[in-house]
Amino acid sequence: MKPLSLKALSALFISLAINSLVSAEDGYRLWLRYESIQKQEILDSYLSNIGTVDIAQKDLNPTLRVAADELQKGLSGLLGSGERSNKSRLLIGTASQNPKIAKILEKQNTNFDQKDEYLVFADSKSKQTTIVITGSSDQAVLYGVFAFLRHLQTHQPIEGLSLRSAPRVENRILNHWDNLTRTIERSMSGASLWNWFDLPYYIEPYYIDYARACASVGINGTVLTNVNANSTVLHPQFIEKVAALADTFRPYGIRVYLTARFSAPIELGGLDSADPLDPVVIKWWNDKVAEIYEYVPDFGGFLVKANSEGQPGPQKYGRDHADGANMLADALAPHGGIVMWRAFVYDFEIKEDRHKQAYTEFTNLDGRFRENAIVQTKNGAIDFMPREPYHPLFGATPETTQALELQITQEYLGGDVHLAYLAPMWREVLNADTFAQGKGSTVAKVIDGSVFSHKNTTFAGVSNAGNERNWTGHPIAASNWYAFGRLAWDHTLSSEQIADEWIRMTFNNQSEVVDTIANIMLASHQTVVDYSMPLGLHHIMAEGHHYGPGPWFDQGRPDWTSVYYHRADEAGIGFDRTESGTNALGQYFPERVAKWSDPEQIDERYLLWFHHVSWDFEMDSGETLWNELCLTYQRGVNDVAKWIQEWDGLSGKIDAQRHARVAAMLIRQHADAIFWKDACLSYFQTFSKRPYPKSITPPENDLEHYKNFKLYHVPGHPAEQW
Amino acid sequence: MKPLSLKALSALFISLAINSLVSAEDGYRLWLRYESIQKQEILDSYLSNIGTVDIAQKDLNPTLRVAADELQKGLSGLLGSGERSNKSRLLIGTASQNPKIAKILEKQNTNFDQKDEYLVFADSKSKQTTIVITGSSDQAVLYGVFAFLRHLQTHQPIEGLSLRSAPRVENRILNHWDNLTRTIERSMSGASLWNWFDLPYYIEPYYIDYARACASVGINGTVLTNVNANSTVLHPQFIEKVAALADTFRPYGIRVYLTARFSAPIELGGLDSADPLDPVVIKWWNDKVAEIYEYVPDFGGFLVKANSEGQPGPQKYGRDHADGANMLADALAPHGGIVMWRAFVYDFEIKEDRHKQAYTEFTNLDGRFRENAIVQTKNGAIDFMPREPYHPLFGATPETTQALELQITQEYLGGDVHLAYLAPMWREVLNADTFAQGKGSTVAKVIDGSVFSHKNTTFAGVSNAGNERNWTGHPIAASNWYAFGRLAWDHTLSSEQIADEWIRMTFNNQSEVVDTIANIMLASHQTVVDYSMPLGLHHIMAEGHHYGPGPWFDQGRPDWTSVYYHRADEAGIGFDRTESGTNALGQYFPERVAKWSDPEQIDERYLLWFHHVSWDFEMDSGETLWNELCLTYQRGVNDVAKWIQEWDGLSGKIDAQRHARVAAMLIRQHADAIFWKDACLSYFQTFSKRPYPKSITPPENDLEHYKNFKLYHVPGHPAEQW
Repeated sequence: MKPLSLKALSALFISLAINSLVSAEDGYRLWLRYESIQKQEILDSYLSNIGTVDIAQKDLNPTLRVAADELQKGLSGLLGSGERSNKSRLLIGTASQNPKIAKILEKQNTNFDQKDEYLVFADSKSKQTTIVITGSSDQAVLYGVFAFLRHLQTHQPIEGLSLRSAPRVENRILNHWDNLTRTIERSMSGASLWNWFDLPYYIEPYYIDYARACASVGINGTVLTNVNANSTVLHPQFIEKVAALADTFRPYGIRVYLTARFSAPIELGGLDSADPLDPVVIKWWNDKVAEIYEYVPDFGGFLVKANSEGQPGPQKYGRDHADGANMLADALAPHGGIVMWRAFVYDFEIKEDRHKQAYTEFTNLDGRFRENAIVQTKNGAIDFMPREPYHPLFGATPETTQALELQITQEYLGGDVHLAYLAPMWREVLNADTFAQGKGSTVAKVIDGSVFSHKNTTFAGVSNAGNERNWTGHPIAASNWYAFGRLAWDHTLSSEQIADEWIRMTFNNQSEVVDTIANIMLASHQTVVDYSMPLGLHHIMAEGHHYGPGPWFDQGRPDWTSVYYHRADEAGIGFDRTESGTNALGQYFPERVAKWSDPEQIDERYLLWFHHVSWDFEMDSGETLWNELCLTYQRGVNDVAKWIQEWDGLSGKIDAQRHARVAAMLIRQHADAIFWKDACLSYFQTFSKRPYPKSITPPENDLEHYKNFKLYHVPGHPAEQW
Repeated sequence: MKPLSLKALSALFISLAINSLVSAEDGYRLWLRYESIQKQEILDSYLSNIGTVDIAQKDLNPTLRVAADELQKGLSGLLGSGERSNKSRLLIGTASQNPKIAKILEKQNTNFDQKDEYLVFADSKSKQTTIVITGSSDQAVLYGVFAFLRHLQTHQPIEGLSLRSAPRVENRILNHWDNLTRTIERSMSGASLWNWFDLPYYIEPYYIDYARACASVGINGTVLTNVNANSTVLHPQFIEKVAALADTFRPYGIRVYLTARFSAPIELGGLDSADPLDPVVIKWWNDKVAEIYEYVPDFGGFLVKANSEGQPGPQKYGRDHADGANMLADALAPHGGIVMWRAFVYDFEIKEDRHKQAYTEFTNLDGRFRENAIVQTKNGAIDFMPREPYHPLFGATPETTQALELQITQEYLGGDVHLAYLAPMWREVLNADTFAQGKGSTVAKVIDGSVFSHKNTTFAGVSNAGNERNWTGHPIAASNWYAFGRLAWDHTLSSEQIADEWIRMTFNNQSEVVDTIANIMLASHQTVVDYSMPLGLHHIMAEGHHYGPGPWFDQGRPDWTSVYYHRADEAGIGFDRTESGTNALGQYFPERVAKWSDPEQIDERYLLWFHHVSWDFEMDSGETLWNELCLTYQRGVNDVAKWIQEWDGLSGKIDAQRHARVAAMLIRQHADAIFWKDACLSYFQTFSKRPYPKSITPPENDLEHYKNFKLYHVPGHPAEQW
């Protein structure tokens, strides 16, 4: 019984072949490969239009230095050894730093009024092109360089070059759920990037490449530690290490933040209490924050998870979230820092639908938070499910800024194994109309401050990067790091455009390659939903490790079971969150409630999120709910099978190494999709007691097989001990 | 207070400069870089002597295929695009597979009588050179290819080329203390290499490079899991993954082994007992082993740590180590596997010097073990201290094969931070005369089977490789992986020769580079001993994490304290292991006892290991012991300072990236050496009450400072939880 031998042997020879290749496309360079342009006419055009880089030496600070360095790196890679025009020129810098640029901008009457606004344009006059990369700040110039290089990497023409953009959101921050032990919670990308033990003595070269990748998509902040926090990071031994990272990232415009464990005054300070109103505690935090700013003068601030899933918090002392947040905010304010206080709180002791608790808690506190204390809210009210309707909190706190927290790491979408491009998922949230101030009050507009004139606007993304050579495990998963940055910068960008950019930069510009990969990517989120938690189903994953199905799970704390969420019974399935149920729906604005109250009217993608409906409920397609459920699961499985074929067709058109890895993962994803389908349908059938539609492949095994299946050592699961 | 800013900023710009470099010398390619030869006369000679590779296509199995592939890789790298002679030819293969080779060997009357014996020679006739790479097996041919490429990498001449070698020891095995959670015990090299979750679907290309590195130094086995074992690896879900790794390594001649948790029948099998004499338990293991062999037909066997430091074992059932080992050996014997049963057992309940316990236990069992059950013994009787006298067990079990277990990972020698080349340490053990069968019964000869005609001779090395890009953290630490393999193959090789080979292959052949690095490397082990545990001191490191000093530690179980080992008091210091003390010395053979009984006669490097001597004891140098101790610590510190200067001088002569990393680590090593000196001397002075010699730099701080210092999150420490 050695079914693997042949498979492994072919994998081996593929690997051998890969190893023989001279060029290493191992994913390390992400979307910043700068491979020499092969298309002759494009290369020729670039060579004649892109001349010598002219960077004034006056006031060349670290940011302008890295900007020049990146430009040099990009151009020498893309243009290779081709001869560049000696008539054309490329000016880079700010007006205040480069007089030639000042002159050009003055003539154009161009003024900048937004932070980090870049401007890149080309001016052609009789075979001499002047390209200018400038902006409202040195940081903007760096962003302009990346925008220009993106333009070239995606083979856009110099003629008519005009890129002007400023970020719509102020803080565009990665959240690394990294532990000081170098394990990463809920990640499958190897060890934490932060080689703490060798800091501050040794700066890994890849810290620089991390900073470049972030800066290239406008990410300007990074929280280095897990929200399930460890107070040791606030010890000087670690602040010193944090400072070394901060110094490394600073030229790239990236500020560092830390998670603050609320009980640090006790654990680290030896105090008896962590009461946010206790003067001794307040002083401790003030002193601690001041200490941090001595090491890191532009420290961003704290991210806090408190009174949630066992994390310590102000409630132990009879205080509320605003009390806790404000104490930290007051400590940070004199230094220009912010506190991001997570709204992800729920407690089964509170006898209310989990879905409702954060809204109840934080709307009650609206108006209580300091200006530099913002509330960080997940995109939906449960927990990063493959699909969630937008969080009812968005738009419901007129006086409190909320950060949008997205999860880049695929905790619930197949880890580093399943291909899933998440921009469409995030676009769905951003496009959603909260109706907070009438029609058009989209989540995007709430978050970017337009609806309520909020300050400290913030996008946060739980990072999927680790010390794996290709950073993200699955090669396609890097697209989500890219997409997060692009959307945080400009939430109006389409999923299609972002995918198109990323594919061209990461692979190549061949239309067959771009189209094939884009089609798979753009379909992938829905496909993952289809084979795992379709039609509004949610939280039916396996207990603990979250990888794979567990809709039968019913042990322990109810709001950590699966049955609590799908509520399948003989009558039907789904969670009644309308007036006849928990009325979590009622927390949304009236226009939204009106749209979703009726199971016949609601967008079917959210049906079972808000309604308990009969197995015979007629869907838009005319099928019964039960049939639709089965057909949807099957469609998800079939989609992955199609991708395997389509991906196969790319063999030889992209590099063998990354092709092989995705191919191997697709086989696993297909097997996992079948497992999801079979496990869930055999389980739900015990309630529906209806036959499977003829067109689906019935489960291969009986329900007990799926219930008994145990998956060992899923990476990133917090219970993973030594 | 930002003392780091300047340091970090310069580190940053160094990193930036590194990033700008086209060629990546990040250490990934280890000693198999195959960089094109720059020295023209050598290149010319090679080009005229190395012709077309002639490999007969008949019977080209995977091993010959990888041999040919490696040869191709090596030659195209080393010889570049230079034109190779079309008159010369290079034949590769075995006699049975390549008739041309058969003919040549027959003419020479060359026969092979040893396993894996390779033969590489050149035969020049009128400007036409025939080079032959052959051997007693396909595996030998692969080893011959690596030997040939080593020859070229170290710029040796083709004229007179004659390399013939067979391994002196049968099993040359790495032990990876890797957990299934991908953490590695006692390692600082990132995450475990084994990406379990993506196995068996995905074979990481670096698995191949791992196999190449191992095969290049003749390593032919690898234990994939931690000796603090996890029975889950024996579950089919994991055996399937193990099989994929085995399939990947097989062509390189590397067999896989696993650690077997003795209680697996209970944890995995649901049995009530793990009694090795219980028929139900015996059957469970027999079935389990048979199952493993269905997946991995050449599975090597088990490595077991039992009844040691909390690991389960046969003693729970009133059985002994031989009972336990034999049960597993009987299960493995029909399939050709072995069990390696670790002698690292000690118990404070047993009121005997820890040093004596393994000897007592295992000499009592001599003769009881099956032929395929061998005892695996650390080089010394305590636990991989920077210096230990050889284990008294060596030579004391005439009827039982012992494996020599060395530690490549620097658990007690500074982790991935301190530069320490360990071949001299290992040579010291190998050269040591046990006197088991009179003079000349060296440890090497005991281990290689010469003294007692033992079978299944084995070298085991606790691996220092992890998923860090350069595998071993500190660039120089890779030399120990290399040295382990070279010594396991041929324990007569000198530390100097091994270092010379490694430096030339890893860096370059410039004599200034080779000499400088070799001098540092060859001195390094003694230097680490000098600044941490000199003159026979041992086990005085910090509690728990083992990084840094803790000679004052006296809490909890005595044989886990420091005071138990140094026994400093007002009279003197050292552990009396002679007749007047615990008489651990008495366990050695009489000739050894005679040499070491007298503190005046004993090799001073072991003085305090066996003797408690007065602070005024006169050393060979004429100094008192106290003074010698101080001067030795200071010498260690001074040596590291010298290396910093010497290493600086290599700037520009080797690649910037690796130069920078070693430079940064040397600064840390120097600071750590000072800390060791200051902590230990200020502590020991409380006993000696004597002044420091004038020529040393006294401790910068008082003893309390060192006692209070706490190092957080040392990687690899088993208590490191989430």
